[in-house]
Amino acid sequence: MKPLPTTERGRRSRMAIVSAAAKLMHERGLAAPSMDDVLAASGAGKSQLYHYFGGRQDLRVAVLHHQFDLVIAAQPALRDQTCDDIRRWRDEVLAAHRSSGLGTCPLGTFVGQTDGDQVLQDTLAGLFARWQDAIAGLVARAQRTGRADPETDPAAAALSLLTALQGGIMLAHLRRDPAPLQDSLDTAMSPLLIRTSQ
Amino acid sequence: MKPLPTTERGRRSRMAIVSAAAKLMHERGLAAPSMDDVLAASGAGKSQLYHYFGGRQDLRVAVLHHQFDLVIAAQPALRDQTCDDIRRWRDEVLAAHRSSGLGTCPLGTFVGQTDGDQVLQDTLAGLFARWQDAIAGLVARAQRTGRADPETDPAAAALSLLTALQGGIMLAHLRRDPAPLQDSLDTAMSPLLIRTSQ
Repeated sequence: MKPLPTTERGRRSRMAIVSAAAKLMHERGLAAPSMDDVLAASGAGKSQLYHYFGGRQDLRVAVLHHQFDLVIAAQPALRDQTCDDIRRWRDEVLAAHRSSGLGTCPLGTFVGQTDGDQVLQDTLAGLFARWQDAIAGLVARAQRTGRADPETDPAAAALSLLTALQGGIMLAHLRRDPAPLQDSLDTAMSPLLIRTSQ
Repeated sequence: MKPLPTTERGRRSRMAIVSAAAKLMHERGLAAPSMDDVLAASGAGKSQLYHYFGGRQDLRVAVLHHQFDLVIAAQPALRDQTCDDIRRWRDEVLAAHRSSGLGTCPLGTFVGQTDGDQVLQDTLAGLFARWQDAIAGLVARAQRTGRADPETDPAAAALSLLTALQGGIMLAHLRRDPAPLQDSLDTAMSPLLIRTSQ
């Protein structure tokens, strides 16, 4: 990976390239767009593109990180260290999915597309591990305030929630109906949550 | 779609083409392989290929049906009208996933890749609906013999199981570890199953 640009203008022009590449790769697959496709879609110059990215693999790694950042930004309950409300996270996931037009997951869609490239595979697995850790953090906070079952292992609960999210988005996208996502999240959440009188 | 071949030899040569195309499309994406790629991979002749398939869309529809047939063949509990054992189905799913080398789902991997082509989209959604119906049939049989909660709607339970299967396979593939699939299926099954003294 080349170093990130240090100027605001540099960051913006790099970001325009990554955004255009992310859109193409989400639509056609991680491996599909050529550097020329990305050039055409981003409107960047060739020297600029190769100034920021050594090649296609570099660009794919940048796209994976970019999609992860967008996913996490849409789930503020995960980063808010005062949030102990797993239902709030569920609502954020559903809202983000709705505003994507019931699209596929920006990150999950790449699972299976990194096979055979160890760098891409490790990058994607690492980002999913960070996502799972962030959900586990929310579960642990809910346990500390008595909103979640203290007997459950937060990492196991987080994996179960992330699995439900991925399977739910897939089926919801396929059926053009958000119900499978809502139902699968609720099923995964239900053994975890402690009923309150509210 | 062209009519299916009527001779055994014709069926075998068509099947060889579909199998080769299925392998390429599973690895690279539904839209990636050209007719020439399929020709090269299958060893079929050009006239033979176009005798069985009008074009790329025809071939993709055939591949979707082919992958569905393989998926269902690996889950005999769904077709066995005397089977009322949801755990047997779960074990079949886990065994098939293990023998695929913890690969991605042959059918689920295409979700998101049919967007923009109504025929492919309807085909894939229709196959998933048939899969869900087959699981619902198993749930209904388990309800009739008292092995599953009779209050649960079989279609809703089947959707929840299918979502868990898809999300579980995704995460298991990503982590190269079958545990996420096993855990997600068990979580989805647990509200449904009635504990027996066995």
